[in-house]
Amino acid sequence: MIKALVFDAYGTLFDVHSVGKECNEIFPNKGDEISQSWRKKQLEYFFLRQLMERYKPFDEITRDALNYACKENGVELSEENEERLMNAYLKLELFEEVESVLKELSEKKLVVFSNGSVNMIDPLVEQSSINEYIGEVISADEIKQYKPTPAAYNHALERLDVKREEVLFMSSNPWDITGAKSFGFNTAWINRKELVAEELDIQPDSVYSDLSGIREWN
Amino acid sequence: MIKALVFDAYGTLFDVHSVGKECNEIFPNKGDEISQSWRKKQLEYFFLRQLMERYKPFDEITRDALNYACKENGVELSEENEERLMNAYLKLELFEEVESVLKELSEKKLVVFSNGSVNMIDPLVEQSSINEYIGEVISADEIKQYKPTPAAYNHALERLDVKREEVLFMSSNPWDITGAKSFGFNTAWINRKELVAEELDIQPDSVYSDLSGIREWN
Repeated sequence: MIKALVFDAYGTLFDVHSVGKECNEIFPNKGDEISQSWRKKQLEYFFLRQLMERYKPFDEITRDALNYACKENGVELSEENEERLMNAYLKLELFEEVESVLKELSEKKLVVFSNGSVNMIDPLVEQSSINEYIGEVISADEIKQYKPTPAAYNHALERLDVKREEVLFMSSNPWDITGAKSFGFNTAWINRKELVAEELDIQPDSVYSDLSGIREWN
Repeated sequence: MIKALVFDAYGTLFDVHSVGKECNEIFPNKGDEISQSWRKKQLEYFFLRQLMERYKPFDEITRDALNYACKENGVELSEENEERLMNAYLKLELFEEVESVLKELSEKKLVVFSNGSVNMIDPLVEQSSINEYIGEVISADEIKQYKPTPAAYNHALERLDVKREEVLFMSSNPWDITGAKSFGFNTAWINRKELVAEELDIQPDSVYSDLSGIREWN
């Protein structure tokens, strides 16, 4: 019996590569590469900082990763463009099916659980059309422990006030879905990019190509 | 006053992409891609397992990553070829300048410190021409904590029996050199691929394009 549907934000509900459009306007022909590198470094930096015990909030890491991506691609990043791109992160687009699926499931407890710091994830959810369906937004920043550490999922569980097995957790990120399953949540991997399964000895309970599939857990 | 010169193994002394040759023989035209993906997943898997508190030794992770790389690239991996490629990891080539530099510094305490499990790193060092110069091989597997955690570098320090500031640590891997500097070692980043510096608020003490540069610490 599932009592809480918990969604990762970046890549799962919101398309992080929608910043690619602004990247392309600022850096013609290099926008996609910069956008990909930005996301890749963002992930790498929060993994590394967690491992090195040098926590830094997600907004600062996102800014650091943007600076790296620009340097790597040999472009200058003006202060103005840095702010413009950081602001783009507060207005990411929802994936196409998200609004209708969440509307349909809106009698359930719907929760966003993200590594994003409160100053990034709150405005993002608030400006989106799903805001009215989301009961709670939980940030790993509240305990300064990033997913996929067990401590992060445990923090979400404590905030939810349900049992571990009453949670269905959704993410598009393989590392996140593996971490959540390892912790003991029910998991549905939203495999938007048709990736092959990870070789981490832990498999999600369900795999769907988009969020529509989770209706069968209802 | 530096008393111990501590070298990372994979990518620093030994060229992990020398397995690319065997990959190319087994999978014509796809060998380079598989070799790159193999290394990328190997790193990702030990980061993730450390974060998820699901430690597994490096040899098993390396095998898992190879399986992922083959699936990702749409090729079948026979048992025979799996063994052949895993064995290639025990015979990686040294980078060109390594032997002469280590020979020149051989009156110092020269140590290899690797995330590799003992059954991978020991045979690799033993079959190489630098074996006679290496006083000790330290594996993160001894405490089941991977670099770049502080616990891993601390383990090396305890094995070395010198002071933290008497260590010069060399790695080509940015995450490793950042972790080592964060822990408090002197560091020389062997930046073989001319990468741009990471945006992690921590910079190595020296940067060289290959190991030759470390002679100035003598």
